[in-house]
Amino acid sequence: MKAKKAAESKAISTEIVLPNDTNTLSNLMGGRLLHWMDITSAIAAHRHCRRVVVTASVNNVSFNHPIKLGDVVTLEAKVSRAFNSSMEVFIDVFVENQATGAKTKCNEAIYTFVAVDQVGCPISVPELIPETEQEKERYNGALRRKQLSLILAGKMKPAQATELMALFTNS
Amino acid sequence: MKAKKAAESKAISTEIVLPNDTNTLSNLMGGRLLHWMDITSAIAAHRHCRRVVVTASVNNVSFNHPIKLGDVVTLEAKVSRAFNSSMEVFIDVFVENQATGAKTKCNEAIYTFVAVDQVGCPISVPELIPETEQEKERYNGALRRKQLSLILAGKMKPAQATELMALFTNS
Amino acid sequence: MKAKKAAESKAISTEIVLPNDTNTLSNLMGGRLLHWMDITSAIAAHRHCRRVVVTASVNNVSFNHPIKLGDVVTLEAKVSRAFNSSMEVFIDVFVENQATGAKTKCNEAIYTFVAVDQVGCPISVPELIPETEQEKERYNGALRRKQLSLILAGKMKPAQATELMALFTNS
Amino acid sequence: MKAKKAAESKAISTEIVLPNDTNTLSNLMGGRLLHWMDITSAIAAHRHCRRVVVTASVNNVSFNHPIKLGDVVTLEAKVSRAFNSSMEVFIDVFVENQATGAKTKCNEAIYTFVAVDQVGCPISVPELIPETEQEKERYNGALRRKQLSLILAGKMKPAQATELMALFTNS
Amino acid sequence: MKAKKAAESKAISTEIVLPNDTNTLSNLMGGRLLHWMDITSAIAAHRHCRRVVVTASVNNVSFNHPIKLGDVVTLEAKVSRAFNSSMEVFIDVFVENQATGAKTKCNEAIYTFVAVDQVGCPISVPELIPETEQEKERYNGALRRKQLSLILAGKMKPAQATELMALFTNS
Amino acid sequence: MKAKKAAESKAISTEIVLPNDTNTLSNLMGGRLLHWMDITSAIAAHRHCRRVVVTASVNNVSFNHPIKLGDVVTLEAKVSRAFNSSMEVFIDVFVENQATGAKTKCNEAIYTFVAVDQVGCPISVPELIPETEQEKERYNGALRRKQLSLILAGKMKPAQATELMALFTNS
Repeated sequence: MKAKKAAESKAISTEIVLPNDTNTLSNLMGGRLLHWMDITSAIAAHRHCRRVVVTASVNNVSFNHPIKLGDVVTLEAKVSRAFNSSMEVFIDVFVENQATGAKTKCNEAIYTFVAVDQVGCPISVPELIPETEQEKERYNGALRRKQLSLILAGKMKPAQATELMALFTNS
Repeated sequence: MKAKKAAESKAISTEIVLPNDTNTLSNLMGGRLLHWMDITSAIAAHRHCRRVVVTASVNNVSFNHPIKLGDVVTLEAKVSRAFNSSMEVFIDVFVENQATGAKTKCNEAIYTFVAVDQVGCPISVPELIPETEQEKERYNGALRRKQLSLILAGKMKPAQATELMALFTNS
Repeated sequence: MKAKKAAESKAISTEIVLPNDTNTLSNLMGGRLLHWMDITSAIAAHRHCRRVVVTASVNNVSFNHPIKLGDVVTLEAKVSRAFNSSMEVFIDVFVENQATGAKTKCNEAIYTFVAVDQVGCPISVPELIPETEQEKERYNGALRRKQLSLILAGKMKPAQATELMALFTNS
Repeated sequence: MKAKKAAESKAISTEIVLPNDTNTLSNLMGGRLLHWMDITSAIAAHRHCRRVVVTASVNNVSFNHPIKLGDVVTLEAKVSRAFNSSMEVFIDVFVENQATGAKTKCNEAIYTFVAVDQVGCPISVPELIPETEQEKERYNGALRRKQLSLILAGKMKPAQATELMALFTNS
Repeated sequence: MKAKKAAESKAISTEIVLPNDTNTLSNLMGGRLLHWMDITSAIAAHRHCRRVVVTASVNNVSFNHPIKLGDVVTLEAKVSRAFNSSMEVFIDVFVENQATGAKTKCNEAIYTFVAVDQVGCPISVPELIPETEQEKERYNGALRRKQLSLILAGKMKPAQATELMALFTNS
Repeated sequence: MKAKKAAESKAISTEIVLPNDTNTLSNLMGGRLLHWMDITSAIAAHRHCRRVVVTASVNNVSFNHPIKLGDVVTLEAKVSRAFNSSMEVFIDVFVENQATGAKTKCNEAIYTFVAVDQVGCPISVPELIPETEQEKERYNGALRRKQLSLILAGKMKPAQATELMALFTNS
């Protein structure tokens, strides 16, 4: 299976926040944005492996700036690292100033997908080749995040998480 | 502001997985479940503070078992700890065996909400009193998770995260 | 087929009234609430018989208090009586005072479901055992309601509806 | 306020049953049809009084024939009687045979609406003039149904419901 | 295959504009109306041929008057001409004055559908018989519109479009 | 008001076709695609003028290839020409081969939007500067399409439509 570049998986989506998407403060509801991010990042994962993908986990979603009714929201997702059958996807969410068009990043999340065959069994995916600085940084962080998630799930001992441990003992 | 018990915030929701909620494998889509969890856990946070709440972050969502078309899904959310104006909410998702009714836990997630006033500014929330063993364990873990999130965001030095550090240096 | 207790069928659902659910007065639309009640009471009927259930009739739905945008609505459904292949389900709808959390009952409805097999043919369901006072009262009323519905549909003569007739002749 | 003819309130709606509207047997879900009927009958009530109307009650909804995915459904609603500020609406639902176009009635329901002003207070509505045989029959039955609903709600003694009582004592 | 009258294909639908359907000016969104028109005109085409129909093209949709939140919208669709396997459908959209009930035409569109068999291959449809003046006018215009669309797609030379050419050379 | 380049208005959106979006042949419904195209092209128009925009007309939408359940659809919209207060937007729709990722163009449409102020009155928009060959070709065609639409609406005499007439008399 031929390795593929991170850029090849890029998926972009653009949405307008409509009344249907807002809470009682007229801000975009968290649940709606989570749904949009799930779809856009699933497309990025699908573009990397060209198979059916299912959401495996979601992490590090933070909602820093409220997004208002009528705002134009752009979601950009790209695979950050591929493991055996799973892919970590970073998704960045931007909102445009309605008058000037200036884009502000208001959101970031990490979704993990697993590629599956027709009966839902995991199958191998190509390796990912990071190219830009940001792609490399996210690629390297992916292993640390995987170790952390295994520790928190009780499936790895902290002492085995060498890369993660360095973060604490060297500080 | 009078402290409130964890049990008082409990919110339950029950859904049937309909065609509209499924992907091409006839499994519940991750994005749809994220949306349902957002609403149920927002109700739990609202019941704790009786104010408008907005989603601040989402973490540790893992999708372990596929949920099928026609399955009955129960979502149970409870506030695990309250900080100044934010509340951490644990949400457990169960699916019932269609023939026997036996419930299996298939999902867990941690949402954080902030209580806001009419113009969206954060306001204080009551303290939380954990009572059961599980409530106490989740209450204690909440501080560790908060430190971890501050470190990952570069807002705290690992050496200051005393509770989290113990996890690595004592292992 | 073993008889089952009313309590075993209980289904609870909690919803927030969002802009999408309201009419031009910012009140919850009747049609949306009817849809929510259908799903929650179908889950109660399914829990009683563990089979696919289809809506057979709806009655006695009254909308006494308007429910406002942002309100938290709790729906509680329980089977009130089981006949051959049909089940009568009572559903109570409560709304919480946003500031105090006090619950007010704002709605009640009676749905009837039929259990069907894979090709849609009716199949037998277990008997229902009422336990509490309210469960017994609703269990007894179910027969009267069934007679009334048969009379109104012209399928039974009023003189045969002994229990219902007593209501008029003894008054 | 000038009385208006029943025919003037007639509202027709036509829908195709799409995957989004079906249950796991690929039949139209009861809750979806209740929602469609609510909207079409609200339009009939609105056409009678030209005011904002809110759903007050729903009765006598029976689902006799399953409606399949892809079926064309026609809903026809007409006000059957107007009281002070409330209107009873009959709604008939037809499904067309896909090959021949022959229409079968598969559903009937009675919705009651109340006309309200901008703050939600009930206001008077015009009287209704029934013309056809069916319109007259439904007009006359409306009073009997109103008495029955008052008795069941404990707001009227059976002995006062003269028209309804005749149904039982004369049989 | 027996020719059918235009009137037999008529499809009517009535909708209330709800918050979910509006943009940030509280007007009905164009995309929502396009979706409603697609469904109503598909029903008209289906009634003409009694087969599965798929949208082939959309033209001449103009949005002349904004439609407001709470407005009652009536859509009336009728096949204007049938070709081999395609049908041109005219759809007129009316909005009612909320106080007087007076109807104003606010929209018109032309949709083309193709009748297909179970695997999606085009199949023949009956001829259409126009009766009223408007039906005849739209029937005659359909050929001119077909020529124009073939020219714009580069599939016909302007000189061959005799009927359309007359429009320019005689003026 | 400073003229802006066509490229600055580009809006991209990516969607997966889910069960909710399909007809009974499991193909994407025309009405759903019309809705998606309306939103993406409205964003392009908004990016050109940075004002609220409303849909004015839709033309030349042709559905050449069926789009299947599970397909990834990419919509690309760009303003083709700006008039006083209106903007013509071209939108191209591509579908990806699920296995190879090869993109096929399956759809094209022309939407026109009008920029409006807070009360819905038309306001001026910047001129558009076309740069690429395709942008220039679409820019030039826009005037011809505008003349054609005025003639068909009876607001211009064919003899005045000099550019359009040349198409017929020179052929």
